[in-house]
Amino acid sequence: MSEGAQPRVRRRDLLTLIGTMAGSAVMYQAMASLGFAAESPYRPVRLEGDPGGASVLILGAGLAGLVAALELRRAGYRVEVLEYEDRVGGRCWTVRGGDHYTELGGFTQHCQFEKGLYFNPGPWRIPYHHHGVLDYCRRLGVALEPFVQVNYNAFLHARNAFDGKPQRFRHVLSDFHGHVAELLGKAIGQNRLDEIVSREDREILLEALRQWGALDRNFTYRPGGITSERRGYERDPGGGAGGVPEISQPIGLSDLLRSGLWRALATGQLYEYQTPLFQPVGGMDAIASALAREVGDVIRLSAKVTSIRQDAQRVTVRHEHSRSGGDPQTASADWCICTIPLSILSQMDINVGAPMANAIGAVPYDASIKVGLQFKRRFWEQDEAIYGGISYTDLPISLIGYPNTGYGDAGRGVLLGAYAFGPYAYEFTALPPDERVKRAVEWGAQVHPQYRDEFENGIAVGWHRVPGVNGCYGLWTEETRRLHYKNLCEIDGRIALAGEHASYLPAWQEGAVLSALDTVTRLHQRVLSSR
Amino acid sequence: MSEGAQPRVRRRDLLTLIGTMAGSAVMYQAMASLGFAAESPYRPVRLEGDPGGASVLILGAGLAGLVAALELRRAGYRVEVLEYEDRVGGRCWTVRGGDHYTELGGFTQHCQFEKGLYFNPGPWRIPYHHHGVLDYCRRLGVALEPFVQVNYNAFLHARNAFDGKPQRFRHVLSDFHGHVAELLGKAIGQNRLDEIVSREDREILLEALRQWGALDRNFTYRPGGITSERRGYERDPGGGAGGVPEISQPIGLSDLLRSGLWRALATGQLYEYQTPLFQPVGGMDAIASALAREVGDVIRLSAKVTSIRQDAQRVTVRHEHSRSGGDPQTASADWCICTIPLSILSQMDINVGAPMANAIGAVPYDASIKVGLQFKRRFWEQDEAIYGGISYTDLPISLIGYPNTGYGDAGRGVLLGAYAFGPYAYEFTALPPDERVKRAVEWGAQVHPQYRDEFENGIAVGWHRVPGVNGCYGLWTEETRRLHYKNLCEIDGRIALAGEHASYLPAWQEGAVLSALDTVTRLHQRVLSSR
Repeated sequence: MSEGAQPRVRRRDLLTLIGTMAGSAVMYQAMASLGFAAESPYRPVRLEGDPGGASVLILGAGLAGLVAALELRRAGYRVEVLEYEDRVGGRCWTVRGGDHYTELGGFTQHCQFEKGLYFNPGPWRIPYHHHGVLDYCRRLGVALEPFVQVNYNAFLHARNAFDGKPQRFRHVLSDFHGHVAELLGKAIGQNRLDEIVSREDREILLEALRQWGALDRNFTYRPGGITSERRGYERDPGGGAGGVPEISQPIGLSDLLRSGLWRALATGQLYEYQTPLFQPVGGMDAIASALAREVGDVIRLSAKVTSIRQDAQRVTVRHEHSRSGGDPQTASADWCICTIPLSILSQMDINVGAPMANAIGAVPYDASIKVGLQFKRRFWEQDEAIYGGISYTDLPISLIGYPNTGYGDAGRGVLLGAYAFGPYAYEFTALPPDERVKRAVEWGAQVHPQYRDEFENGIAVGWHRVPGVNGCYGLWTEETRRLHYKNLCEIDGRIALAGEHASYLPAWQEGAVLSALDTVTRLHQRVLSSR
Repeated sequence: MSEGAQPRVRRRDLLTLIGTMAGSAVMYQAMASLGFAAESPYRPVRLEGDPGGASVLILGAGLAGLVAALELRRAGYRVEVLEYEDRVGGRCWTVRGGDHYTELGGFTQHCQFEKGLYFNPGPWRIPYHHHGVLDYCRRLGVALEPFVQVNYNAFLHARNAFDGKPQRFRHVLSDFHGHVAELLGKAIGQNRLDEIVSREDREILLEALRQWGALDRNFTYRPGGITSERRGYERDPGGGAGGVPEISQPIGLSDLLRSGLWRALATGQLYEYQTPLFQPVGGMDAIASALAREVGDVIRLSAKVTSIRQDAQRVTVRHEHSRSGGDPQTASADWCICTIPLSILSQMDINVGAPMANAIGAVPYDASIKVGLQFKRRFWEQDEAIYGGISYTDLPISLIGYPNTGYGDAGRGVLLGAYAFGPYAYEFTALPPDERVKRAVEWGAQVHPQYRDEFENGIAVGWHRVPGVNGCYGLWTEETRRLHYKNLCEIDGRIALAGEHASYLPAWQEGAVLSALDTVTRLHQRVLSSR
């Protein structure tokens, strides 16, 4: 691996190098020896065999469309991509100062963020096990930095708990664990689980509960050095003779339970939110930009598709300019990969068979809204020592996400002031944008009173009003998946679909990437076998 | 706060600006309004009042000495710093390729790391609540990046558990929580805690256990989608029709308890290891370098102090060149702040009163060793999807710490191959350096078999052999603290001590900083009142 010594190739991907040099068999062998290969559905794709000049028309330049275009071009296909927006990326989108955005209904927002500050209205984090996205980042040189999901010093807030005063995550977590450990210890100590846990295991379990739950030698969770070393101190340890720490007082079990704040404890333990997570430096759209750079000059922006028709030989797509309309144009190719969200595609003229048509019409799209807010200063760091991560609240804003970059900057800062799904998202989206921002500020001020003095401007993206998507992501239920998912994924004549909606990872970029790789692999097999 | 608009001053500290412009009263007022001010012993120090040309001799250019020098110079003192090593920073130290290091006993190690790779033999992480260190980083423009403490995909390993096969942290954590939740749920469901938990609270607790512990509707922790969404899947969700996930099988309670792997679960919940933590970009010594830059040209390197004598007027220090010896020299000043570790100072000629002398002699120093290892490639990322964070083992290496920077680089990588305290540290330190490295590689290969093919070179720092420290940190017990700590912190005539050993934060840089600030504040008061 002497190439590692040369800085020029340090960001190139090892597997790509192996693949390029020795063909796919070697690459697969290398992958198969990897520790995570068995549990990952991701394999680097390199399509082998001559497509014989076949052409593919790709609809949509989101991550699915871009990945499909990249791999098909690399395999020798003639590729054309049509994109509705005047930018690539789709939901992989970053808003910066100077950007403007017109939503369904006609409202236009002009982003007034300071130069260098940004907000990701769509995806904003990449789990460590989203191997497809991470591998494309590596191969394309997209620099990543950690996304802080769990911040022990962030707030948990509920309107009716603790008189509306936000609590530190570390207090709620430590005290919940402590009370649970103490209660279970009592049940065991009173020989109440003897029929379930063996005598030997009980001894180990007691010791495990003591260590894990910060119990004292009597298996009690009580104010003291042991608990303060978890939840923090009333006054932290300091220097010199005056530096003696003061212990803190845990929250009582009943107050804790009735607060409901424990609801937020499991979030960071979900597979998709476990540390470490990552974000591209400078904004999520760095991924789309890097893919588009590799795909090259075959992407046509501002092209609104109006019909998709296939016959035995070709697929023909009619399109017009997304904003100005004008004369309808056509594009055609031997094959078509359509990544248009089902929320849009279901309203479109497309001649596919009943199974796929029914599948396209069967999937509703979840509602979601994100609000980005700029403040005069990073008061969450300066006043509260919250560096990155997320505070949760039962207010309609649902959470406040702090920037995971630029820690310690003395200037302005942009945070995520609301990220709501479901009913709250519909309510928010129904309001005009400036009203959404205003409410996000009012609600957020209940968590951070500094909002009132420090707020400068904001932008609000309700996904059901985003023209190219008309929703956040495909909301599969168990039943619709059973009935329609396979039909959605089949190649129908010369048309195949791809996107997060054609994956088991709805709403995630990884779903779009894996779906695209699956589709191009199957399409390529079809092409080779039909020659 | 319009200064935020100008990129030039973005990294300057708000409080420093307020302090500079309006004096310390305003600064303190600003601090006191901060959300974390009440629980933090840190206050930005700005010494007010003319010291009248007083001079201070500072012994040691570690963080305590540098911070003391910075604040005293800023207040108008004449300052001189003597440092034993030929570099500043003390235990705030970073080793890079090309560096060489000679330890007590005479072994010299030449670091062969590739350019750009490094290893911090001393402190390597900064908690979010170490406000002093963080504030100096902000003020001095030291760029920080997150330190990944908890990596859910890292390993927990014990020689006698699971046939020595490392387990993923997420498996152990999820299964421990799940079993604990299920057991407590059973105890509650059988009305066995009725006298402790009220009826209403029991209902809420059951629901909390279900959500937190990933139990099913029958309050059971069992293989299924709910548990796989925590611990991960046998095969992750993918794209297309073949992307159906396969659920994973939890570890049984008895196997889990007897493995002892639960011992590592609480680490990331300790106040000092809670996310987010930070590290300076490029190595911990960036902090010392930035401080030294501000302190300026008053630091004399390679100056070994041989005696510290005071009389009613002055303090006089004899010193010689640390390596070449040569003619003894003297330095003198009105006052002396001595930051020399007690492990060294206790062997030195210093005329202080019995209380301080006894305190100096009362504190043993803990043993610790760190081993940095360079590998041909970052196999922990490429093969195992472990990006940063820590794996724990019961082998003498104790842990493996992965680099929290350069994620995805295709070239070489350096990880922390051992970080042991206590008996294992003494055993390691007793070996010659190349043998320490060899053992770290052999043991580490039990966690990562790739070590055997990929290892290139290493360096091992046993702190009891580091000449300027002769140990890792002051190991206070409750009893020695009760008897001696106050006496250690008192100003003895014209001599005052500072360092992590004069704090309630042993081994942490924050302890050194807070101790230094406490000492300079008290010394300054003494100077002003004695004029």
